[in-house]
Amino acid sequence: MASIIICRETYCLFWEHPSIRWIHIVVNFDKELAKNQANYQPLTPLSFLSRAADIYKEKTAIVYGSQRFTYKEFDINARRLASALTKIGVKKGDTVSVMAPNIPAFLDANFGVPMTGAVLNSINIRLDSRTIAFNLDHGECDVLLTDTGFSETIKEALTLSSRNPLVVDIQDMNIPEGERLGMDYYEFLSTGDPEFVWKPPDDEWDALALNYTSGTTGNPKGVVLSHRGAYLNSLGNLIAWQMTGKPIYLWTLPMFHCNGWCFPWSITALGGTQVCLRGVNPIEVIDSIYDNKVTHLCGAPIVLNMLTNAPSESLNKVPKGLQVLTAGAPPPAAVIKSCEALGMIVTQTYGLTEVYGPCVVSEWDSAWDTLSANERASLKARQGVRYQTLEGLDVMNPGDMTRIPADGKTIGEIMFQGNTMMKGYLKNKKATDEAFSNGWFHSGDLAVKHPDGYIEIKDRSKDIIISGGENISSVEIEGVLYQHPAILEAAVVAKPDQTWGEAPCAFVTLKAGMSITEQNVIEYCREKLAHYKCPKTIIFSELPKTSTGKIQKHVLRDQLS
Amino acid sequence: MASIIICRETYCLFWEHPSIRWIHIVVNFDKELAKNQANYQPLTPLSFLSRAADIYKEKTAIVYGSQRFTYKEFDINARRLASALTKIGVKKGDTVSVMAPNIPAFLDANFGVPMTGAVLNSINIRLDSRTIAFNLDHGECDVLLTDTGFSETIKEALTLSSRNPLVVDIQDMNIPEGERLGMDYYEFLSTGDPEFVWKPPDDEWDALALNYTSGTTGNPKGVVLSHRGAYLNSLGNLIAWQMTGKPIYLWTLPMFHCNGWCFPWSITALGGTQVCLRGVNPIEVIDSIYDNKVTHLCGAPIVLNMLTNAPSESLNKVPKGLQVLTAGAPPPAAVIKSCEALGMIVTQTYGLTEVYGPCVVSEWDSAWDTLSANERASLKARQGVRYQTLEGLDVMNPGDMTRIPADGKTIGEIMFQGNTMMKGYLKNKKATDEAFSNGWFHSGDLAVKHPDGYIEIKDRSKDIIISGGENISSVEIEGVLYQHPAILEAAVVAKPDQTWGEAPCAFVTLKAGMSITEQNVIEYCREKLAHYKCPKTIIFSELPKTSTGKIQKHVLRDQLS
Repeated sequence: MASIIICRETYCLFWEHPSIRWIHIVVNFDKELAKNQANYQPLTPLSFLSRAADIYKEKTAIVYGSQRFTYKEFDINARRLASALTKIGVKKGDTVSVMAPNIPAFLDANFGVPMTGAVLNSINIRLDSRTIAFNLDHGECDVLLTDTGFSETIKEALTLSSRNPLVVDIQDMNIPEGERLGMDYYEFLSTGDPEFVWKPPDDEWDALALNYTSGTTGNPKGVVLSHRGAYLNSLGNLIAWQMTGKPIYLWTLPMFHCNGWCFPWSITALGGTQVCLRGVNPIEVIDSIYDNKVTHLCGAPIVLNMLTNAPSESLNKVPKGLQVLTAGAPPPAAVIKSCEALGMIVTQTYGLTEVYGPCVVSEWDSAWDTLSANERASLKARQGVRYQTLEGLDVMNPGDMTRIPADGKTIGEIMFQGNTMMKGYLKNKKATDEAFSNGWFHSGDLAVKHPDGYIEIKDRSKDIIISGGENISSVEIEGVLYQHPAILEAAVVAKPDQTWGEAPCAFVTLKAGMSITEQNVIEYCREKLAHYKCPKTIIFSELPKTSTGKIQKHVLRDQLS
Repeated sequence: MASIIICRETYCLFWEHPSIRWIHIVVNFDKELAKNQANYQPLTPLSFLSRAADIYKEKTAIVYGSQRFTYKEFDINARRLASALTKIGVKKGDTVSVMAPNIPAFLDANFGVPMTGAVLNSINIRLDSRTIAFNLDHGECDVLLTDTGFSETIKEALTLSSRNPLVVDIQDMNIPEGERLGMDYYEFLSTGDPEFVWKPPDDEWDALALNYTSGTTGNPKGVVLSHRGAYLNSLGNLIAWQMTGKPIYLWTLPMFHCNGWCFPWSITALGGTQVCLRGVNPIEVIDSIYDNKVTHLCGAPIVLNMLTNAPSESLNKVPKGLQVLTAGAPPPAAVIKSCEALGMIVTQTYGLTEVYGPCVVSEWDSAWDTLSANERASLKARQGVRYQTLEGLDVMNPGDMTRIPADGKTIGEIMFQGNTMMKGYLKNKKATDEAFSNGWFHSGDLAVKHPDGYIEIKDRSKDIIISGGENISSVEIEGVLYQHPAILEAAVVAKPDQTWGEAPCAFVTLKAGMSITEQNVIEYCREKLAHYKCPKTIIFSELPKTSTGKIQKHVLRDQLS
């Protein structure tokens, strides 16, 4: 309630105006204007399901093979799950992990788990038991919902883990009976109240999800996402992808990948239909697109590449105008071109688990419509501009945080700012502080900025290998290699790979007098790592180093490209 | 960090499971995961302009006659305005009022004023000087931006007001020079820094706008809107209206009406073009649609009605597929039918100033595509379902707050809940408390709920008259009538009117021995009220009353319908 006096000397422009000597008292626009139950509610994407159940009722929410769930049924299953979990004591601060492919129960979990206040921890189904055990331990798993197709790995992970979670088995009727490790999922659901009244989070900053990312170091980091961020990015997806009406969305992107890039919530917000699919066999994918009149799907470039290389009798079934959102790795312009030649409309996005999936979009400018297919594909292959729901995106010199010039040449690190950034890494203050240093989230990805403001990734973050859409930490592989009795030094880098986009390639030097074969090394890794993480090539050579003794991976990478 | 023990007896289902005796400690998902500059920013629609200036740069943001402003220029003007205001001391807690039709300077103000932290107070240009003076006084106006077309009214209002604001004249080059009351707007802008760095609000709950609504009582109430609510409803608009690409939006809705229903911010979020227009002469409107390739416009039903009754040589210019959003009063199904016969696509919405404009939409169900034009218009004329960004909408019995059955017959009051509700009424705790009683915002509008969940207004709130899209308080008119020496009692109700939708009709009884004519009464009102508020019909008759002596307005209304 301060008063101010405008000074004549400073503001001589207003010299002659009668109000020059105004004295005013500010208004208190907060007095008796506080938040209340009517005008404030914590943002959460969970409310999209309640709305959809109210409005879309009998419309189909989920399709899986011959199964159909209406929005009412979807809502009831989510509430039953929340209620069943609550009855066994699950509450805020607890962790419910899910190990499952793209099946309806996983969609239930994307709503039902956070409805209890607990955090949803989705596990990458391709991980090895050791890494899963780390996840269960570090994330303090209390309940584990697990598809029986993964019983063997999970059983081993539970043995390795110090946790003793309640296990609920999801037996997918489309696969043979798997070994049971606990309760049956639908039996468990039946203990829940279909009219369970869930409460929004106490605070929209509360944690909603915990996703482990291998990141660039060997230790998986637990990315904690909030209700607020997930709500905003869910809406951001709709606007960026220009989704309207009632999309029919096919799950080709793994739901365990950063909560399916928020699409379980985005599609529910619109009252669209989510078509589940266990695997991504290209013929099955195209059959599902055709049979279910699919309008939208997401996928890493490798999935798109696989689709465009399907048999021609399948390709004939791909409907013109199929909307395809891609992210996860910069798709080669060639892949975009092949997709568009088939009549697909590709939207290229960019993001990371830490930023709720995609939040940068290669927004199309209609002025580019008349360019050649090659030029259009090149423009589209750029990462683009920020979502409406992202507050800051720039390419900077991480040393002094200066913005690099928008010349399409100078390389810097992609930095983010805004509400769709993770809360941080669980129990890892050091990594959190580093990631958020100087008030920006450091992506670790290197890019240029074009004169029109669109960013384009020029290099992956230093070490990460993206193989078949999966992040593989070179440091983790190196950790295994260093355990080998014959290996002195090791450095793993990405090698371009026709099938997987990239594959790990290890450069190793041997201890004096030792001798091993490429096959020996690969087999050794297979004993210790998930197969997809194992190097596909071993090169025995000296390792180039900086003056301070750091291995120069970019030199190794240059040898491979 | 509490621990829980699952009780065997209660959860016998899990009796045999090894995890039955689990004891767990909850995880602290907030520890070292606090908000910081990188992962949290207060929500504000102002950031849409910064984003647009970054991304859309040279694209046309604003069109006004032969004038064009690119997004860079729009952003610069907003920053200049913010800077010029800041230089004269405007800051958080101050009020900047604007009296202007739909011209570019008003768009500048929708961003530039709140960029200073001050509150934007848009004034209805049709108001009389007395009411404007009340607005300036109650809202504690510090700076007044005023179009010289309204100098006469404003000059009088300033005389009546106890405030002494700094006045900035906006001289629209499309109208004759008006009387100057203060600084010139563009001269004022030139004192501002085009690179002014605005700060987001300290808190997204901070006030952004103050809009006076006549409401149902004679005293205008100051609706205070927050940055958070405006941000969310701006995105809600895009999703509800299915806006994609780069819309070309024509300003037929007054920007002073509840911040143009948030569209100054919504269109900027998409990088669309806003076409300004001073008046709503139907021929000029259609010419502008044609000349500027307009894709979208909003308007009260009366505006739509006016358009559909334009001369046929004009109507031939209306492009097929023109998207029209209507709200403000339930449009007669006949108006929707006429619009759609011309190829317009009408989206019917519902809202109030207190809820940031539209936040309920008559969402179209493709299952209705095959119905007759009459049936389709009737379905579309319903108010509909809540926006994705609205948390609660229901029809209730205000007495006991029970939900009325969704039978399409039972009438109740429309109630809202969520983040797109006003903060409250400025300096009016009683009205705020009443509006928010029992945790819901009470709209005062009466509706039924159909079995499919869509709501439909059956009656306006008891007293309000909506004439030409303007709310007119019957109580205010009655207040004037009661001052007339010959009038004993008066009751004003809405009378259906072909031009204005509704017009005030006064029922009066005279004092004993007195005699006056209808013309006398109307002229008396014209001396005291804005012309549009004056009753168009005076009926001399007894007033029906309840046993407790209250006038039964519904009986009067029945006489007129």
